[in-house]
Amino acid sequence: MTDATSGAWAYLSRVVEPPCAELAALVSRVGPVEAAERVRRGDVHEPLARRTEARRDIDRGAEDLALLARRGGRLISPDDDEWPTLAFAAFGAARAKPDSRPPLVLWALGPARLDDTSQRSAALVGTRAATAYGEHVAADLATGLVERDVAVISGGAYGIDGAAHRAALAADGVTVAVLAGGIDIPYPAGHSALLHRVSADGLLVTEYPPGVRPARHRFLTRNRLVAAFAGAAVVVEAGLRSGAANTAAWARALGRVVGAVPGPVTSSASTGCHALLRAGAEVITRADDIVELVGRIGELAPDQLHPATPLDELSDDERRVYEALPGRGVASVDEIAIAAALEPARILAPLAMLEIAGLAERHDGCWRIVRKRRQPG
Amino acid sequence: MTDATSGAWAYLSRVVEPPCAELAALVSRVGPVEAAERVRRGDVHEPLARRTEARRDIDRGAEDLALLARRGGRLISPDDDEWPTLAFAAFGAARAKPDSRPPLVLWALGPARLDDTSQRSAALVGTRAATAYGEHVAADLATGLVERDVAVISGGAYGIDGAAHRAALAADGVTVAVLAGGIDIPYPAGHSALLHRVSADGLLVTEYPPGVRPARHRFLTRNRLVAAFAGAAVVVEAGLRSGAANTAAWARALGRVVGAVPGPVTSSASTGCHALLRAGAEVITRADDIVELVGRIGELAPDQLHPATPLDELSDDERRVYEALPGRGVASVDEIAIAAALEPARILAPLAMLEIAGLAERHDGCWRIVRKRRQPG
Repeated sequence: MTDATSGAWAYLSRVVEPPCAELAALVSRVGPVEAAERVRRGDVHEPLARRTEARRDIDRGAEDLALLARRGGRLISPDDDEWPTLAFAAFGAARAKPDSRPPLVLWALGPARLDDTSQRSAALVGTRAATAYGEHVAADLATGLVERDVAVISGGAYGIDGAAHRAALAADGVTVAVLAGGIDIPYPAGHSALLHRVSADGLLVTEYPPGVRPARHRFLTRNRLVAAFAGAAVVVEAGLRSGAANTAAWARALGRVVGAVPGPVTSSASTGCHALLRAGAEVITRADDIVELVGRIGELAPDQLHPATPLDELSDDERRVYEALPGRGVASVDEIAIAAALEPARILAPLAMLEIAGLAERHDGCWRIVRKRRQPG
Repeated sequence: MTDATSGAWAYLSRVVEPPCAELAALVSRVGPVEAAERVRRGDVHEPLARRTEARRDIDRGAEDLALLARRGGRLISPDDDEWPTLAFAAFGAARAKPDSRPPLVLWALGPARLDDTSQRSAALVGTRAATAYGEHVAADLATGLVERDVAVISGGAYGIDGAAHRAALAADGVTVAVLAGGIDIPYPAGHSALLHRVSADGLLVTEYPPGVRPARHRFLTRNRLVAAFAGAAVVVEAGLRSGAANTAAWARALGRVVGAVPGPVTSSASTGCHALLRAGAEVITRADDIVELVGRIGELAPDQLHPATPLDELSDDERRVYEALPGRGVASVDEIAIAAALEPARILAPLAMLEIAGLAERHDGCWRIVRKRRQPG
């Protein structure tokens, strides 16, 4: 990569909040250097002009690349061999989900090659509020995956994520932490040492340039990459409102297999897993179960898994809950329950299923409908 | 019922080991009194002659009925209003399973009416070697069922069965213990007091005449009645070799919904439940989940649930395991694994699924094929 090219990627990586379809389209049409030049000049059409307006005068590309070089990191762009083309192939098939597109460019730090690891890998994700049981199982699964030469992908968070990374490192395996902020921002701070070890032996990767701090929407955006880099996503422990369900929804939308670990029905940290199992997730009790599910990503056929008319596939309860979602705006679980004339407890599994099917999504603790495609008229 | 009729039923109940298709056919053709007379005289064709030969001179009908009367019990025959006709309707649809037929007559003790309770009931079954978790969940589910006016059916055993009966009684609900021996033989002995309470407030029921002791094959035969009397069968905890899987297989064959309670993947007492979940059992985490599944039995359509060609429905692994079963005789798990060229651990879930589909069955710790129907030629 020439300095001009890497400088352009660095500039473009910061100028919009990813992912941005319009910027991706421009780059693929004219290349990164020319795209950066046009954005800088303001010589782009709406809505890209509007989306780049606030940051187009900020160019920290040189500093960002210097920081990256000092730490021994690298940019990975679509022109690089390391770009995980197969991992991103399914984004096109999951258009029903907003933000269903690859990153523009990736910032990476660590000896593992992203294209290789994502060929044989599984995501182990779950709640930050994990129990001793959940952390034990996460560690056990990670160890078993590593022994079978499967890389462990996770999000670097407290709880399940941390237990998975830690066990993978302890077993001398490859583990990848996908961050929701810059590569120089260890988050959570209490995981600084752990993330440092991941960068030394595995891989830290993010679509955010240095200095960007994680924020709520960035965790959700990041989850699509956790799902994309892994052949299967396994939720080890999750409450009903855990972000892990969002990763599972991404995995399903991308044609990846979703698994969930059963746990005591008396544990609220397993309720999300049981909801996923009801919605068709695979029962995971040991690492071998996951190894069976992890095909080479290129062999997966997301289109087959994702019917053109998912509404046809809904159960009665799911359809009832779907129809109870407001036409615009969001609704709380209680409001949806009233509209659907079902008990609140009974709409949680249907909501999880609708999220997995890409028909509904969480928004600030409430739910809203996801339109498949606008009907004419 | 006249004395002659009840005497005939009592005689017939002991003269063969139930269930016996030939005796049932004779009784339905000529009635119980004439059938008893012919069997007594030896005036019946093969193979009924052979099956009744050993016991046809034994007539303890009068003593059995006197014992039953002293305890306040009753016979329930197909001519009685209390005969649970709907509960037995599905036996005809499950012909693939050997022994798929109603009892000849039932011995019952307790105030609950069998026809009423089996209209709205669930079976809670599981391992005798239950954990504290399993007993806690069984009790919780039984209490919740009783609160929603659902009767709790079980087998009176230690562990899960006992916890379910006990909690149902404590909540002033109806509970039914289906015995694998005579109504005067409390089994296990340690449950004498519990079974006495079931007979005082609920119902003890069995197809075996007084004095018959439970035996291994009688538990398996009994399991079909546990499944038949309940609208759904829920396995709370079960190891991979638990008899509860046999009850679940009967329930599935009879068109009942099968549920399983998830538990810690670190607990061997939940491995059977997880195998059932893999094979499509419903995820049960609370009593409401079961209440939803318990339809009125007459509304179920077992034929729809049970495709005519279950072989078509098998997954690759299940077909491989099915084809690895010996053409005649039995094989151990290890032998089947070798024949299927799969790891032993990987054939357990397929075997459970084949049992549920009525294509394989356990026999003395080994497995054998169940032929669907002989092909001509």
